[in-house]
Amino acid sequence: MAITNRVMTYENLEHRVYEALAHNNLESLKEYLATQHPANIAAVLDRLNHPQRHQVFALLAPAQQAKVLDELSTEATQNVLDILSPQEVGVLLNYMPMDEAARLLAEEVPKQRAELLEVMSPEHAAAVQTLLQYPPESAGRMMTEKFARVQPELTAAETLAYLRQINPEVETLTDLYVLNPAGQLIGVVSLRDVVVAAPERCIDELMNTELVTVAPDTDREEVARLVSHYDYLAMPVVTPDKHMLGIIPVDDVIDALVAEQTEDIMKFGGMEGGGISNQPYFTVPLPMVIRKRVGWLFLLFVAETFTGTVLRHFEDELAKVVALSFFIPLLIGTGGNTGAQTVSTLIRGLALGQIQMRDIWRVIQRELLSGLLMGSLLGLVAFGRALLWGSSTQLSLVVGLTVVAICTWANTIGALIPLLAYRLRIDPAVVSAPLITTLVDATGLAIYMLIAKAILGL
Amino acid sequence: MAITNRVMTYENLEHRVYEALAHNNLESLKEYLATQHPANIAAVLDRLNHPQRHQVFALLAPAQQAKVLDELSTEATQNVLDILSPQEVGVLLNYMPMDEAARLLAEEVPKQRAELLEVMSPEHAAAVQTLLQYPPESAGRMMTEKFARVQPELTAAETLAYLRQINPEVETLTDLYVLNPAGQLIGVVSLRDVVVAAPERCIDELMNTELVTVAPDTDREEVARLVSHYDYLAMPVVTPDKHMLGIIPVDDVIDALVAEQTEDIMKFGGMEGGGISNQPYFTVPLPMVIRKRVGWLFLLFVAETFTGTVLRHFEDELAKVVALSFFIPLLIGTGGNTGAQTVSTLIRGLALGQIQMRDIWRVIQRELLSGLLMGSLLGLVAFGRALLWGSSTQLSLVVGLTVVAICTWANTIGALIPLLAYRLRIDPAVVSAPLITTLVDATGLAIYMLIAKAILGL
Repeated sequence: MAITNRVMTYENLEHRVYEALAHNNLESLKEYLATQHPANIAAVLDRLNHPQRHQVFALLAPAQQAKVLDELSTEATQNVLDILSPQEVGVLLNYMPMDEAARLLAEEVPKQRAELLEVMSPEHAAAVQTLLQYPPESAGRMMTEKFARVQPELTAAETLAYLRQINPEVETLTDLYVLNPAGQLIGVVSLRDVVVAAPERCIDELMNTELVTVAPDTDREEVARLVSHYDYLAMPVVTPDKHMLGIIPVDDVIDALVAEQTEDIMKFGGMEGGGISNQPYFTVPLPMVIRKRVGWLFLLFVAETFTGTVLRHFEDELAKVVALSFFIPLLIGTGGNTGAQTVSTLIRGLALGQIQMRDIWRVIQRELLSGLLMGSLLGLVAFGRALLWGSSTQLSLVVGLTVVAICTWANTIGALIPLLAYRLRIDPAVVSAPLITTLVDATGLAIYMLIAKAILGL
Repeated sequence: MAITNRVMTYENLEHRVYEALAHNNLESLKEYLATQHPANIAAVLDRLNHPQRHQVFALLAPAQQAKVLDELSTEATQNVLDILSPQEVGVLLNYMPMDEAARLLAEEVPKQRAELLEVMSPEHAAAVQTLLQYPPESAGRMMTEKFARVQPELTAAETLAYLRQINPEVETLTDLYVLNPAGQLIGVVSLRDVVVAAPERCIDELMNTELVTVAPDTDREEVARLVSHYDYLAMPVVTPDKHMLGIIPVDDVIDALVAEQTEDIMKFGGMEGGGISNQPYFTVPLPMVIRKRVGWLFLLFVAETFTGTVLRHFEDELAKVVALSFFIPLLIGTGGNTGAQTVSTLIRGLALGQIQMRDIWRVIQRELLSGLLMGSLLGLVAFGRALLWGSSTQLSLVVGLTVVAICTWANTIGALIPLLAYRLRIDPAVVSAPLITTLVDATGLAIYMLIAKAILGL
């Protein structure tokens, strides 16, 4: 009994690959690669240069190539597929579960989609086309048809015998799905419960009939929320009349969670997340980065020009009391910071389902109140700071009161805008920190100038 | 064969609970609750008022109470435990897996920790105390000891017989962990592979010896990254000499991912995430919200006062050309927005392991270049906009050049600061959008004024 207990790591593999390429020792690398995890191979391929990448990819068996392709970045996928003939790509697509093949065709090589569907096996192509009917980022796009179907009248012993037969065809055996003759889902039973049950017990005695399912057009974010809420290892996808279409395994749900997380933080940072959120940092070409960023920057720039309009409107007042302008960045900065905090709280509360439509007024009241309280605390500090700088009591009062007003205002619209987006069925995560900062800048300036005019009698 | 195929939802349950409370129909509610998912019961309890919450909680059997407690918000947990005697709480803790009991004692009722450990069963208390030695948010805190241990020399048939015996004691049977007589992990085999194998085959022929494990002090974020990378359903936790301590099931990993996600977006929004990130929006008391927010706001406020210092330094220049002040919010706003985008890209790249220490210079070069390119595009627009506003060519040139300089600068320090945090082993997510905006504000103003002085000859 010779047991090798190797710890599998990305670093080990990367080292081996570079060594083998340097010494042109490809035969032994081929053997080694066959034992490695596809995710690690993909991570190494992502970092190699083009000729090395092609060399290493060619060492893999087609089944492993298919698995590695699913984990590769978009850039590397396109690059690897470029050197294969459509027929070769078709073979790889046939090896993939239908959700992965659909994702590849829709997201990574959309231009060759029609051509590649032609060279796939007809049943496989038909299955993939069914998935492609569902909207992107929906449950229908993530599901696999390779789940274990069982009949309610089988005994535990019969079920185990049956599973031995179908084993090669299913992706996961952790849960078995009980279908009636019409193909409707009537229960779920875990492999564990079948294994430990007395051999003569029937599936319909063992199965759980309290089901949580999703429709094929359910958004992937909702799927992730349900799987995390119920601690499931897979989520069944059914039609409205309960016909079972497929399952979404938990590892795909985790991938969706991570992708959503990236998209959310990108959007919150004021960027278009779509398309680049699944791509490793270095693999996104610079022109694409700029395209994804400059659009938002430009829009925000245009919105920000209103600050100039507001200030020009109060040109006389600013000329009379130049000291007013010293406080401009401090005041609008504080407003922007407060608003950014509120937006991030709201985005999470909405994403996790903690805040619902009926809660809108409660949220606004709560944020208005907390804005007022925080504004009062900071306003006192601002008043003191302005005095210390040698500003007049009146000017200091203007600054202090403006902080109170701006914090309350920023907190309220920082809550209002994500709620409005949610109400209009727009993802609240599009309300970015830069967007709220920009909105608060122009309106905050107007508040400042109006308070100044009133108190200083300008 | 009567199959009820009910779709289990939170809304159904909430409706039933309110109905039963209104009609004081508690007996039938008790029966209904026994069939419901603990996560749904917890979600309803979170929204009930205190007396109703106590009434409904009392209807649950102790084993279900223990499961519900694990899903409740901190506020509701404390509230529910308040009305129980320490002995009663001790009984509930004994029902919990050790990781959940440890989390409850450490995070939800830290003050009663010593007292409650006393009333737990001695073995259970000892197990929990072992977990509490590991740092918060580490693998050691998340693991359960209730995994299936098997010996390498068992046959598949013997293994299945053995699993029927130990079934009640283990939390998950999806994977079986193969230990040698010294208790060291030597392989993992899935229940699926055991079920479909020929009955006489031995575990050591079936098991996978390419292992990925974590140490008990591994951070939960790293655990999540590994589970998502390798598509695992559980992660084994071992000591440096490979003694198996426990496993972290995938559902706990998902909870950790969601909590980290919340923490990241809170931090990025400029808030202290710790402590409130697992709590539903409405359950966080207002004074705590303010405490968590006002500290950062105050710090940023102090940093932002440097903008005043910069402007006062250039008081004469501003008095001579009042129009200079019109562009202040626009220029520093654009800098802040650019910086926020870069920070969000960097935080994700670092969190997902796409950017490593050796990549620092590549990142800085890349961000400097993209900042320069985006700045040039926006600078052209700014120059045109200033001219249209009737500013002099010279002033417009100042504005345009400042945009180029500020974008380049903001992009570079937006990359530098998360990298610096990473290097110092601080979570890069503490670099919030407000922090970067504030930093860019004061430095951006100085850049603006210096360019103005040089070109306008002030």
